[in-house]
Amino acid sequence: MKRREFLAAGVAAAALAMTNVEVKAEVTDSTYDGKSADKQQSARLCLGSQLGIIPGGSMEEKLAKMKAWGMEAVELGGNVANLDEAKKIKQQIADAGLIPSAVCWGSHNGDLMSFDKERKQKGTDDLKKVLEGAGIVGCTGVIYVPAFNGQSPLTNQEMRKMLLDDFPALADFAAECGTTIIFEPLNRGEAYFLRQVADGAAIARDINELSSKKCGMTVMGDFYHMSIEETDMMGAFISGGKLLSHVHLAGGVSDPRRTIPGQNKSRFVEGFRGLKYIGYTGPCSFECGVRGDREVEIPKALAFLKKEYELAVI
Amino acid sequence: MKRREFLAAGVAAAALAMTNVEVKAEVTDSTYDGKSADKQQSARLCLGSQLGIIPGGSMEEKLAKMKAWGMEAVELGGNVANLDEAKKIKQQIADAGLIPSAVCWGSHNGDLMSFDKERKQKGTDDLKKVLEGAGIVGCTGVIYVPAFNGQSPLTNQEMRKMLLDDFPALADFAAECGTTIIFEPLNRGEAYFLRQVADGAAIARDINELSSKKCGMTVMGDFYHMSIEETDMMGAFISGGKLLSHVHLAGGVSDPRRTIPGQNKSRFVEGFRGLKYIGYTGPCSFECGVRGDREVEIPKALAFLKKEYELAVI
Repeated sequence: MKRREFLAAGVAAAALAMTNVEVKAEVTDSTYDGKSADKQQSARLCLGSQLGIIPGGSMEEKLAKMKAWGMEAVELGGNVANLDEAKKIKQQIADAGLIPSAVCWGSHNGDLMSFDKERKQKGTDDLKKVLEGAGIVGCTGVIYVPAFNGQSPLTNQEMRKMLLDDFPALADFAAECGTTIIFEPLNRGEAYFLRQVADGAAIARDINELSSKKCGMTVMGDFYHMSIEETDMMGAFISGGKLLSHVHLAGGVSDPRRTIPGQNKSRFVEGFRGLKYIGYTGPCSFECGVRGDREVEIPKALAFLKKEYELAVI
Repeated sequence: MKRREFLAAGVAAAALAMTNVEVKAEVTDSTYDGKSADKQQSARLCLGSQLGIIPGGSMEEKLAKMKAWGMEAVELGGNVANLDEAKKIKQQIADAGLIPSAVCWGSHNGDLMSFDKERKQKGTDDLKKVLEGAGIVGCTGVIYVPAFNGQSPLTNQEMRKMLLDDFPALADFAAECGTTIIFEPLNRGEAYFLRQVADGAAIARDINELSSKKCGMTVMGDFYHMSIEETDMMGAFISGGKLLSHVHLAGGVSDPRRTIPGQNKSRFVEGFRGLKYIGYTGPCSFECGVRGDREVEIPKALAFLKKEYELAVI
């Protein structure tokens, strides 16, 4: 009622009252021609995996297996922070006829979301090292979680502020390395802060706005976490939009949890509609468990996902 | 790296570690036939307004003006909590050939998000009164903001928990009255908690799951707040989905802020695409200031919005 009177009083009062809102850009001011189909044309499904579930006694064997199964993109681990290792991995991936996707890094114990300067510096230094390695390999980004539950004393609001204070410089560092920092929204059981793709995308956008290069922060979606936190997979991916740089594939929270697609009741059509709508061409990467014989089950999962992608008509 | 090893260890360990996640439903388990066009068929633009900006010396004059301009839905104020008033208003709206939309209520000073029992009881009683009145009028819902900045000592996480603890019963009360409680996501300048449609929809879904009637909580989108907090209007409305029950129309944060559509650089095509995609038929209601002669500017805004809606091709 107070609010209605305030609005009825007109825009002058409104403008005055709203001046405490810090906003850098408005997303609605583009010019629309009424057509959105163009961006959908370019969309394609680029399948890949973390190395853990791939059978093989060596990196070479695993990469050869991925190639033989028709996968394209390899998700790596934090060992790329060793720059010699990074160069070697880059060559191995190229030799196998594959491409690198993201580095699955994590939260570094939440050290970057800390008021303790020393702890924070250590986390920052280590993130920079892995960004450098990711750049050498040619990775799309380094997957980063601000804090798992219990790792940071900061409230959600304080964490958002700390990200906006500290990450424009880190985003520029990532961009200079030729890569990005990728926010991974998790589910409430793992992290209370950053649980939806739209939230991660908005924080990434705000950080980019405050940075020089404007492109060092991105966001990803993980089908498992999304099955808990999102009301709509398509809506979430569209909110990720051009900031979306990675996708984790796993069955949702239904029994059995987080198994490979097809070993779970989870469907992927709705999410794939979103990926098609935004013209996503980036990697979709297995981060999941597998029941049974991996030699049989992983190819089955790849076939299942291709079928789901075909069904995703907009 | 720890995380990758954990995942590589397979699904048994994963299932064990995830048992602390409280989840009631997974949204990905529906059956898809690959077609989504059906729901789009039913979508239509139902325009309306709060009464404040409508010229007229009386309720009757305002309603007659709205009808003459081709509006359909009337957004009301907290005075419907007076049940005699509610009955009168219901009749006035019917006599004018219009329909009621939502009641714009607010936060009641954040009283429901308080650890103070007396304060909370007062807020709860008053919300129940306005829900009863809204039910009598036939309103789609009562717009509710958990707390504006500074109104509640609770952190975001505590507020979400308090909503899940207290609101299943209130949602059932709303449903018994034949109406709903509508979460309104605001922008950070007004409220740090609840700033995105996807977040509001997820909280509403979780409350509904815990309630008996499963339908008493809904969510709305306000184009002004969305222009600040959302990365994509279409993605946000799709995330609202079937839980979306109201829309506020106003120009975004661009100069001049929160003016009537068309008096601002803001476009509505992207948001309307989302509304069309989910088959939204609910009210889209002016909550904005108007510069210049309202008799001229409001009809201009209505024509502008109809054109934007036509341009919203999916």
